[in-house]
Amino acid sequence: MSKQIGMSSTQLAAPVYIREWASAVGKKEGEGPLGQLFDFVSGDDLLGNKTWEEAESAFQKKAVSLLFEKDTEAYNRARFILAGDLLGQEIASSFGIKDFRIPMFGLYGACSTCGESLSLGSMLIDGGFAEQLVCVTSSHFASAEKEFRYPLDYGSQRPPCSTWTVTGSGAYLLSREPGGHLSEGGKTMKSCLSATGHEEERNTGHKVVDRQMFDLPQKCLIERKHEVAITAVTTGKIMDYGVKDSMNMGACMAPAACDTIYRHLKDFDRQPGFYDKIITGDLGTVGQQILIDLLMQKGYDISDRHMDCGIEIFNGEEQGTNAGGSGCGCAASVLAAYLLPRVASGEWKRILFLPTGALLSKVSFNEGKSIPGIAHAVVIEQM
Amino acid sequence: MSKQIGMSSTQLAAPVYIREWASAVGKKEGEGPLGQLFDFVSGDDLLGNKTWEEAESAFQKKAVSLLFEKDTEAYNRARFILAGDLLGQEIASSFGIKDFRIPMFGLYGACSTCGESLSLGSMLIDGGFAEQLVCVTSSHFASAEKEFRYPLDYGSQRPPCSTWTVTGSGAYLLSREPGGHLSEGGKTMKSCLSATGHEEERNTGHKVVDRQMFDLPQKCLIERKHEVAITAVTTGKIMDYGVKDSMNMGACMAPAACDTIYRHLKDFDRQPGFYDKIITGDLGTVGQQILIDLLMQKGYDISDRHMDCGIEIFNGEEQGTNAGGSGCGCAASVLAAYLLPRVASGEWKRILFLPTGALLSKVSFNEGKSIPGIAHAVVIEQM
Repeated sequence: MSKQIGMSSTQLAAPVYIREWASAVGKKEGEGPLGQLFDFVSGDDLLGNKTWEEAESAFQKKAVSLLFEKDTEAYNRARFILAGDLLGQEIASSFGIKDFRIPMFGLYGACSTCGESLSLGSMLIDGGFAEQLVCVTSSHFASAEKEFRYPLDYGSQRPPCSTWTVTGSGAYLLSREPGGHLSEGGKTMKSCLSATGHEEERNTGHKVVDRQMFDLPQKCLIERKHEVAITAVTTGKIMDYGVKDSMNMGACMAPAACDTIYRHLKDFDRQPGFYDKIITGDLGTVGQQILIDLLMQKGYDISDRHMDCGIEIFNGEEQGTNAGGSGCGCAASVLAAYLLPRVASGEWKRILFLPTGALLSKVSFNEGKSIPGIAHAVVIEQM
Repeated sequence: MSKQIGMSSTQLAAPVYIREWASAVGKKEGEGPLGQLFDFVSGDDLLGNKTWEEAESAFQKKAVSLLFEKDTEAYNRARFILAGDLLGQEIASSFGIKDFRIPMFGLYGACSTCGESLSLGSMLIDGGFAEQLVCVTSSHFASAEKEFRYPLDYGSQRPPCSTWTVTGSGAYLLSREPGGHLSEGGKTMKSCLSATGHEEERNTGHKVVDRQMFDLPQKCLIERKHEVAITAVTTGKIMDYGVKDSMNMGACMAPAACDTIYRHLKDFDRQPGFYDKIITGDLGTVGQQILIDLLMQKGYDISDRHMDCGIEIFNGEEQGTNAGGSGCGCAASVLAAYLLPRVASGEWKRILFLPTGALLSKVSFNEGKSIPGIAHAVVIEQM
């Protein structure tokens, strides 16, 4: 079968395995509905650093380090690292991963960068250019507020349609070969992870939320019964519906998500029911409704299987996060903590995962420009 | 032969042709030593726009449009566009290319982005993911000064080791198949290009530097005797020697250029003499000397064949550009206007081209961080 499907999709010749994954998030994320599922939760959003930017780098470094702890041969085998974040000139990535000294491709797709990195990463492996590589993205609430809106100290008000940038990072080890890390008997995916958190506390003195290593709620103890792999890619186009409200990112990004899902379904001649879940990155509650409506107009009903990482990660009413979570770290950490384990456990057979990005800067916003969106989709399946 | 060479290099299975290329630059670049070679020179660095950022987008759009004018089937065939620039959140690219509606991967490698785009682009084609795709990068003196240093209105002084950000863009059409655009008899590569400039003037009223279409100096009239292709890639690592002087980018980037060249020569077991030229992006005169010294310490003498796009594009003394040109648009426009034609004409058989990037933002600089560098190399050969 040809690798090039339709105008903008790719069928990988062989599955590209997501051999390992790791997540590191901040305090608020740890207190949210998925709190128990993250590999590392810091009680200190500065992670012991002096600036928010350094802190974001530290979360990214932590996520990659966790990946290398989980798969101890990965550091020597990873041929590339594909990294990105939201900050100007991607300083969170540059300073976060420079010490690993792995050949690096910097990517920018706003909050869609996680999808972009998995897209390009899986193609690099499928094309024979690497046996293993790392994808990592991050965001930080405080560095993002400073970068895009106002410094936290201003105490600006936030409208209900606004989203809350996730403090965190997700990292993935893509591999031509499966990982062979399937659970045996009672071994679960969480067993080694909280230990890492505690070790961190011992080694560095950073305050780490107590994860009660041997007393996790049952929902966290998911057996890894299947390998997980990326099998197809649909690449995002920039979509600009002329929305200019930087406090309503969901509305800016929904048209791009709609376009990518629509092209994906058309390219492969599939119906939404082909997927157990169709999962966007950070549309939030407002963007979710727009996406469902837009796709309905094109003849596709995804309302019964749409999920949004930004909606899952916070309890909006209790946590004051309004429409949901957002940022490069939102889709990335939720994929690692919540989505991949459900594919690995057999709960879902196949998902369409598409992080969504809003392509603005404070300069473009202040100059009165619109906020175009982009969404990069990958098909993730149990093997 | 394996595609993966050594720890960080790639030998493409088949040549990836640079089927067409185009450059669009500003007034100062048009007045420099390479002025007659660019496809499009604007007398107005705003290109009729209101802001410097919009102007940069317009240069990027112009370069891609020229590409599509030169190869009229390319627009419908280009499966991806790989784009990047220096501005926060890459707004020059997002707004520059969004109207083309081509599936897009945004890249960031500071001024090395041109090399990154050619690296990833050639691998995507070699891996069978596209028959044709576009790479484009840009920079703009005024938008970069505002982004990284001070607004132009401040009239800040510039030290001798500083560089001058190039206003311009270069775009390339990568292809699995050769272009078949070789010159026949008296036909030259320049013949159609100045005409485009004049047409632009007619259509938009933008002031265009008069290029004297039928009266170009003989040096511009280069016959295209050979196809040009990318055959290998060496991917950059982030190198941080702790330099913190944002007015001495050459010193920040030279260690990265040294590292990439060294790894390339080691991976392929080659000597510098294998290449007619080893060409960096924008080290300038200060960085050039550092690079030559660093490589000499490692046992490689490239002094007789090193060239730097930043040194070539301006006449530093006459034009007040100090150590040379810089920016994503520097290597990109010089590659299109000056380097590729010399490979196509047969003057050079094989070059190692490695744009160099300094990974800083004004935030990281103001927070006292160092300025790490990165350099992405591609081997470009006549076929």
